[in-house]
Amino acid sequence: MNKSMYQIETLQKIINDEIARRAEVLSARNPAELYAPVNYSLGMGGKRLRPVLLLMSFNLFSEEIENALPAALAVEVFHNFTLLHDDIMDKAEMRRNKPTVHEKFSENSAILSGDAMAFLSYQYLMECRSKQLFDVAGLFTDTALAVCEGQQYDMDFENRLNVTEEEYLEMIRLKTAVLLGCSLKAGALLAHATDEMASQLYDFGINLGLAFQLQDDLLDTFGNQQSFGKKIGGDILANKKTYLLVKALEKAAENHKTELLRWLNIMDFNAEEKISSVTEIYRQLGIKELTEEKIDACFSQAANILHDLPVNDLRKEQLSNLSKNMLGRRF
Amino acid sequence: MNKSMYQIETLQKIINDEIARRAEVLSARNPAELYAPVNYSLGMGGKRLRPVLLLMSFNLFSEEIENALPAALAVEVFHNFTLLHDDIMDKAEMRRNKPTVHEKFSENSAILSGDAMAFLSYQYLMECRSKQLFDVAGLFTDTALAVCEGQQYDMDFENRLNVTEEEYLEMIRLKTAVLLGCSLKAGALLAHATDEMASQLYDFGINLGLAFQLQDDLLDTFGNQQSFGKKIGGDILANKKTYLLVKALEKAAENHKTELLRWLNIMDFNAEEKISSVTEIYRQLGIKELTEEKIDACFSQAANILHDLPVNDLRKEQLSNLSKNMLGRRF
Repeated sequence: MNKSMYQIETLQKIINDEIARRAEVLSARNPAELYAPVNYSLGMGGKRLRPVLLLMSFNLFSEEIENALPAALAVEVFHNFTLLHDDIMDKAEMRRNKPTVHEKFSENSAILSGDAMAFLSYQYLMECRSKQLFDVAGLFTDTALAVCEGQQYDMDFENRLNVTEEEYLEMIRLKTAVLLGCSLKAGALLAHATDEMASQLYDFGINLGLAFQLQDDLLDTFGNQQSFGKKIGGDILANKKTYLLVKALEKAAENHKTELLRWLNIMDFNAEEKISSVTEIYRQLGIKELTEEKIDACFSQAANILHDLPVNDLRKEQLSNLSKNMLGRRF
Repeated sequence: MNKSMYQIETLQKIINDEIARRAEVLSARNPAELYAPVNYSLGMGGKRLRPVLLLMSFNLFSEEIENALPAALAVEVFHNFTLLHDDIMDKAEMRRNKPTVHEKFSENSAILSGDAMAFLSYQYLMECRSKQLFDVAGLFTDTALAVCEGQQYDMDFENRLNVTEEEYLEMIRLKTAVLLGCSLKAGALLAHATDEMASQLYDFGINLGLAFQLQDDLLDTFGNQQSFGKKIGGDILANKKTYLLVKALEKAAENHKTELLRWLNIMDFNAEEKISSVTEIYRQLGIKELTEEKIDACFSQAANILHDLPVNDLRKEQLSNLSKNMLGRRF
């Protein structure tokens, strides 16, 4: 491998070191009550997927990845801002095995420190004093608004039983995929790639993001608790409108539909029984296979776009490895 | 008056017309649940002080105010975003005689639509395709973060009795004054004013903002309910750390201090009695006069800065009128 091509782990370390450096700066800022939750949130870890994608995309065209590091930080800070606010809205108590910000501090802290993170992400982004910054800031802003739209759709779906596959895919495109696309496109733009290549990388990110979210839906029901890292069946218990449930409601004939609706409406139930009964309906309807097919289709689409990108194959290897890695070595 | 110099009412109308035009665009966007609270918030009215200041500042140097209109919208949308989130944090039920967004819709709506407004303000701002946009966006972002810091200080002060005058002034500088300064400076920058003049206008805005907030503190206790538009004594009932209370705690000798602290700690009380008793302590300590002196000092500082600004006096008349108007014709 070329020395100037960075591997996933190296990039994660570069990003984590930079987050640690920034955390010191933030912890010296006042008021401490505003910045402590920011550092808590950024210090929770995670795979740093979005900044890694940004740097890898940049690295397809340029070796000076430190020039893109502020933008990489920006997408990570933005992503964590969305987690703070989403966790309040979803009343989530835990994230990455730690109390969420509104549980650890307060709801007001999670709102206000979240707001501060949104603006902090712009501060970091604007450190990239590049001619492309205008376009990147526009992309970043459009993406941020799209993510809000996705979260609103997700909340709206809670009260609906007639969500179509198309609506579901549009929701996860907005809520999850556009930020991956944005990270990849921003990296490409900052490295002076052509608009066409930047667009191809955006589309690669969208398809990768869809596959990634669908995989997450699948593993929540059919995964291995150890490797998934969360309790299996959480989505079923919460009646979450996942791809699995949307497809099951679409495919089910009268008898299965009645049983599914009974489980969706029942207030008093045994958790294990609900999980195993709904999972059994999914099995009988072939939902696992349908979901795997959709994941494969999205992943293949992403792989084809990356394959067609007019960049030396060796340079694309890291992005290809990362995308396989994201989908749990199924590919 | 020169035809190209816009009066307050004309600017307010230009801004309100533009908000109405944007509202139509927003109401056609999906999901409707995300954008309805945005339009509700922007349609609540208000004096449009910040965008008026931006356009007036721009108008000191240029007549093509339509070039600055997107930036004017941006500061207004940003200001309304802070109101949505502050109202959740303060559990405020009413604003401008209407239910607040979290009361009218839901808390989740107020969080998420508020977030959307923050990004919408960047979208509007970036419509100003000016060479100065880089500097303006940086100023806007630093200001946004400062406003978050101010709100955090304000919340922290709720649990403190030893807030100093200096701390209080720094809090209102961040929470209120910097956005006025930002609006004025952004207008100047977009009109290609020199950096020095832009800075002078920023400082004018800071002092005007301080005077404005101190006046608001004063009127909450000593104002006329009719012209103030809110119930008198709200700050006293809420134990709000206003300039009046901070100064009273600083000035009070033992007997007054004991009584003030009793009113601050008492859980069960008659509202009218608490308001009249605390107001009486303020009277005995000369707090009204002290506050008026401070307002006069800030206002004079603002007026001097405006006076020294090397722009034709006639051009400055509108800003001078507006600042007097803001302080309720006391000047």
